[in-house]
Amino acid sequence: MYNVAIYAVLISFIINLILSPILIPYLSKLKLGQFVRDDGPKSHLKKAGTPTMGGIIILSSTLLTSILFLKDNKDGLAVLLVTLGFGIIGFIDDFIKVAMKRSLGLKAYQKIIAQFIISGCFLYYILNIANIGTSVIIPFSQGKEVNLGIWFLPFFFIVMLGTVNGVNLTDGLDGLVSSVTVLIATFFTIVSWGENSSIFPIGAAVVGSLLAFLLFNSYPAKVFMGDTGSLALGGFVVSTAFILKMPIFIAIVGIIYLIESISVMIQVAYFKATGKRIFKMAPIHHHFELSGWTESKVVSVFCIATAVACLIGLLGLGR
Amino acid sequence: MYNVAIYAVLISFIINLILSPILIPYLSKLKLGQFVRDDGPKSHLKKAGTPTMGGIIILSSTLLTSILFLKDNKDGLAVLLVTLGFGIIGFIDDFIKVAMKRSLGLKAYQKIIAQFIISGCFLYYILNIANIGTSVIIPFSQGKEVNLGIWFLPFFFIVMLGTVNGVNLTDGLDGLVSSVTVLIATFFTIVSWGENSSIFPIGAAVVGSLLAFLLFNSYPAKVFMGDTGSLALGGFVVSTAFILKMPIFIAIVGIIYLIESISVMIQVAYFKATGKRIFKMAPIHHHFELSGWTESKVVSVFCIATAVACLIGLLGLGR
Repeated sequence: MYNVAIYAVLISFIINLILSPILIPYLSKLKLGQFVRDDGPKSHLKKAGTPTMGGIIILSSTLLTSILFLKDNKDGLAVLLVTLGFGIIGFIDDFIKVAMKRSLGLKAYQKIIAQFIISGCFLYYILNIANIGTSVIIPFSQGKEVNLGIWFLPFFFIVMLGTVNGVNLTDGLDGLVSSVTVLIATFFTIVSWGENSSIFPIGAAVVGSLLAFLLFNSYPAKVFMGDTGSLALGGFVVSTAFILKMPIFIAIVGIIYLIESISVMIQVAYFKATGKRIFKMAPIHHHFELSGWTESKVVSVFCIATAVACLIGLLGLGR
Repeated sequence: MYNVAIYAVLISFIINLILSPILIPYLSKLKLGQFVRDDGPKSHLKKAGTPTMGGIIILSSTLLTSILFLKDNKDGLAVLLVTLGFGIIGFIDDFIKVAMKRSLGLKAYQKIIAQFIISGCFLYYILNIANIGTSVIIPFSQGKEVNLGIWFLPFFFIVMLGTVNGVNLTDGLDGLVSSVTVLIATFFTIVSWGENSSIFPIGAAVVGSLLAFLLFNSYPAKVFMGDTGSLALGGFVVSTAFILKMPIFIAIVGIIYLIESISVMIQVAYFKATGKRIFKMAPIHHHFELSGWTESKVVSVFCIATAVACLIGLLGLGR
């Protein structure tokens, strides 16, 4: 039966491989004239010509493949809709930046409201349609669960928005978020397959799609995923984790997302308190870059950390 | 029970992580004055100061971890001895180059004779001690086997020497052979664990060791594995495959080793026949580099190809 997961990976890989050469030149045309996010290191200015919104390719191959494999599967549909929903927020943001030549896209409050709405719908699904309930698995407890009761509500929104924005922040170096997330998607595919959850083909589709995307996205990148991609991937990771009752595991396998987010919070809080910066630049991948690491070194180290974290996550599941 | 494999990965990772900062400065001192292999692209001359023989670290953490997990396991001991044996050939070669400041090491015929001797001992083990026999699994046949009979002998030596030297040829870019091989070792760990073969902790130890080694070996490399590492890894891959009756699968999951070897053969044959070169430089990773790909792009693409190949290998096992 693991063959099904492998077929899903390969089909998604091939779809992405077919779509990329068709869509990337089109994204390049759209891109002409737009500037790279002006909050990175100066050495990133050379990236100004690289097309973005490659997340459209990732989303397309993931959706097409998942639909092939899922049939009438409620949980799978919910994960897909959350992935798509966050992807659409990212797309609107990217589109304003690229097509309307505004360098900063959606306003922060607009993004947050949209993210709350999608999260709220998913919460309704979890509690009232799928009846997954308010219990979550405790890592390293041999699968014991804790019922969060009413505290599940704030916990849910913090994890949803925190994860999605953590994935978004991680997207700042060529191939970084794609390669970290391909490992995390592999983790969730193996776990959901092992736990007999019917959602595993979606994880497999994400793995295949990201593997193909990395051919174009690894350093030096020919295309970026944009917020379309990073928000969609965030939506995939967090909704899969909630369906499997494993949101706490995001803090383990998504350690890089977490560190990236925390580095920004520390930087901002420290700057407000003292007027000084604690990191040379946040998110922390830029700090390492400015400390003399090459872009690809940061990516390798973060990937290796994620691979180890995913193994620890498997141990923590304790089955 | 998969926990055992994960513990082996993590322990080997930690041992390597402890040994590396101790041994790398020592390897650097040894290295002073030695030149980088003078058959690469000119841009590689900057690598002249990078220490080599990092394979010692890989071998140490693999051996220590395997011994912890293997106890009295014949097949495992055989795989370890082949790995160590080839590692020692590589070490002698590296040592002559580094400590004796000769730029080319052992003579080709000396290496080949030594490789034949180790392979011959392993053949004796397969046929007369472990009684694994002369049958091998046919990929995509639902696990059917073909008995090669007397043809097993030439087949065995061709696969042994071909694989080991293919792995050796692949070692020409920062992080290339380590990252390709960490995927292949993951494949063999999963398969040997799934088939209840007692050798799986060795694969896990190789995975953990290579993950840690990549922290130092990925572009820009602080250390190379040298022939010590690449011959040892070749020995690990090929002996594991024979214990599992899966030598034919090396042509699938080791597609990069195969392509690297074939590119050299084609280049040499074509040059002898026509006086012209078909690739800008062989092995083929240098051809891509000279065609304008960055070193890290070649590594990512070869890794992604290997990841897909390993999934196809799992399908080909058909269990």
